[in-house]
Amino acid sequence: MPVLRNIGRLVTCRAEGRQDDVHPVERAAVVFRDGRFVWHGPDDALPATYAAEEEFDAGGRLVVPGLVDCHTHLAFAGWRADEFTLRALGASYLEIAAAGGGIRSTMRATREASEEALVARASGFLDAMLELGVTAVEAKTGYGLSEDAEARLLRVIGHLEDRRDQPIVPTLLAAHVIPPEFENDREGWVRLVRERIIPQSAGRARFCDVFVETGAFTADEARAILSTASAHGMGARLHVDQLADGGGGLLAAEVGATSADHLEHTSDAGMRAMARAGVVAVALPFASLYLRQPPMRARAFLDAGCRVAVATDFNPGSAPSYHLPWAMTLACTMSGLTPAEALKGATVHAARACGIESICGSVETGKRADLLVLDADSEEQWLYHAVPNAAHSVWLAGRPVQRSPRPS
Amino acid sequence: MPVLRNIGRLVTCRAEGRQDDVHPVERAAVVFRDGRFVWHGPDDALPATYAAEEEFDAGGRLVVPGLVDCHTHLAFAGWRADEFTLRALGASYLEIAAAGGGIRSTMRATREASEEALVARASGFLDAMLELGVTAVEAKTGYGLSEDAEARLLRVIGHLEDRRDQPIVPTLLAAHVIPPEFENDREGWVRLVRERIIPQSAGRARFCDVFVETGAFTADEARAILSTASAHGMGARLHVDQLADGGGGLLAAEVGATSADHLEHTSDAGMRAMARAGVVAVALPFASLYLRQPPMRARAFLDAGCRVAVATDFNPGSAPSYHLPWAMTLACTMSGLTPAEALKGATVHAARACGIESICGSVETGKRADLLVLDADSEEQWLYHAVPNAAHSVWLAGRPVQRSPRPS
Repeated sequence: MPVLRNIGRLVTCRAEGRQDDVHPVERAAVVFRDGRFVWHGPDDALPATYAAEEEFDAGGRLVVPGLVDCHTHLAFAGWRADEFTLRALGASYLEIAAAGGGIRSTMRATREASEEALVARASGFLDAMLELGVTAVEAKTGYGLSEDAEARLLRVIGHLEDRRDQPIVPTLLAAHVIPPEFENDREGWVRLVRERIIPQSAGRARFCDVFVETGAFTADEARAILSTASAHGMGARLHVDQLADGGGGLLAAEVGATSADHLEHTSDAGMRAMARAGVVAVALPFASLYLRQPPMRARAFLDAGCRVAVATDFNPGSAPSYHLPWAMTLACTMSGLTPAEALKGATVHAARACGIESICGSVETGKRADLLVLDADSEEQWLYHAVPNAAHSVWLAGRPVQRSPRPS
Repeated sequence: MPVLRNIGRLVTCRAEGRQDDVHPVERAAVVFRDGRFVWHGPDDALPATYAAEEEFDAGGRLVVPGLVDCHTHLAFAGWRADEFTLRALGASYLEIAAAGGGIRSTMRATREASEEALVARASGFLDAMLELGVTAVEAKTGYGLSEDAEARLLRVIGHLEDRRDQPIVPTLLAAHVIPPEFENDREGWVRLVRERIIPQSAGRARFCDVFVETGAFTADEARAILSTASAHGMGARLHVDQLADGGGGLLAAEVGATSADHLEHTSDAGMRAMARAGVVAVALPFASLYLRQPPMRARAFLDAGCRVAVATDFNPGSAPSYHLPWAMTLACTMSGLTPAEALKGATVHAARACGIESICGSVETGKRADLLVLDADSEEQWLYHAVPNAAHSVWLAGRPVQRSPRPS
């Protein structure tokens, strides 16, 4: 039963209260048993019964819950660095997609890759994320875009879910874009998704996600797809309002989505509707930065009463970095979150956005003992200094993580 | 005489030509002697006379010149993380400064720190920068703001210059803001800078820099200060047009500055004048990001005929990260540089911006053998992927750098 003592500041990130209330404990200690938290509180109040256990010293550092990356497109092959240069020179997301780049480019590479190669690559990313303190990850399909290829990506993610110590949340994103085979038959693709892909994904995918945007899916298509998904036991998530206001906030509220993500152009009415419906608003600042979109108005979402989460959107096009702490810094500089708000957004609210708030995202008795020990004395200092990796050490289910080599 | 072979792509970054012409050599080799480049070219053209030398294998990786951070405020004490939160909540740079924060806050901490503490702290930063591949650094005074305290900061920087293997370029920035002791006597401070601080800094400071902005110095004060500095053998640099268009581009051209930095609000006329006068335009994207300023229009500067450099502006307020590769990524995403342009901007053009282009910044015979070996196959892949640290290894004056612990 390990005891982590001499924590300078323990930020527990319990969900209740305002987003800037991270429920800290100064000069704290934490006790684990069988990978779960059993006690935490002021170090000098550590019950004598624990004091003789296996002790670790946090060296007076800041300790926060393991981070949760609640929006990633983890399972992909290839890169699209060329598009980065094109965008710097002024090409838009839709122009690049129309020229055969974008999601369909990654779809081609992903379809060609072996299942083993996809697992190995995603595992390398998960190792690298873990070194940054990211202890739970949501992972979407969406680069298969055929019945077989989407099933294969769910198997890849399921394999990671089974073999990794990090919680992995599989999300079906067959409605990412219309695959080229259905270019002139979008109704056909929506029907295939509803009649075959969703039923076959039942029990494997925790959520169904739809990208609602020009060049992707309409709100009506999203309603139909998410309705079918709900009948098969999947929660709803949405990519909305990224490139223009498509009424995505209202749609997310209407369908009772667990989260709506991107939201750069969401209206005030959309924000209020999301707040009433309890939809988590997920900020994806890398995508705003890389696509040169206006930042998601996180402050306005908070004022409207929403919970705001922060995620990387890690994917090979619009958000090619898995560096969640840097995304948190960007959420502060671009979207006006305070460091405390960004931290709650990348822990307990992120866990809620992908349905795992009962097992992780905060330091609470019974939850997984996932912790990030930081070379910083406050969340402000950590996120503003923005070093390559501020993690002093990472604990996964009560065990210290060994550092691994960098992934390629 | 070490030979680095099996380089997948060697980006030499010779100065001539357009900024996007980085003069690459595919499948290359490089030979050093006494810390300088003596040969580079295609690996299969390696002269037989070198082939038997001490060989290192770059593993097919991308190799670029050691990066040059041409604008830092390296010598400081304390942090200002609290201001990061205030800015997220909407406080402006000038509001924070008016409330006793900002530069004067760091001035107070820096005056109180011992010379040894300042050297140790800056050395820790330089170690961390070196791990990222930053092999040469410009360092400004400007947090002393008294005759003695500015001299002390120059000694700190001079100490680093003498003891480190990285080239360090000392810049006098006594004209950072008006110190509190001269709040009601700005003419008195300008006089002290011109009559005592500059003469005493002659032979120590390579450049004199002036912050021209509301709350700092006027263009006329800058003219007077830089004229005196020139008479004492210092080159001119300028912080201009950061928060508003203050005619800084025109001023930089008029005084023949080596560089003008920030430039978020520079007019087209200012850009053209800088191009005619050969003033390097230094983009500081962290400062734009952290202060929520519009990005410097790098593309327009290139179109006007300017060389554009990229630097961190590392300081404890507006740009608290020393991560130059991230600043390069931001220069692409925010300011529209291509990765090749950002790379030339953080190597040979950065070296020019701080007066060391004759000794480093590109792979050319006779220059310092400072190299960055990257876990990437192209500059596009490196800068778009934005991992914590893509450096596979770093070479300083022909010797591999050993990795050190993280600084606090």
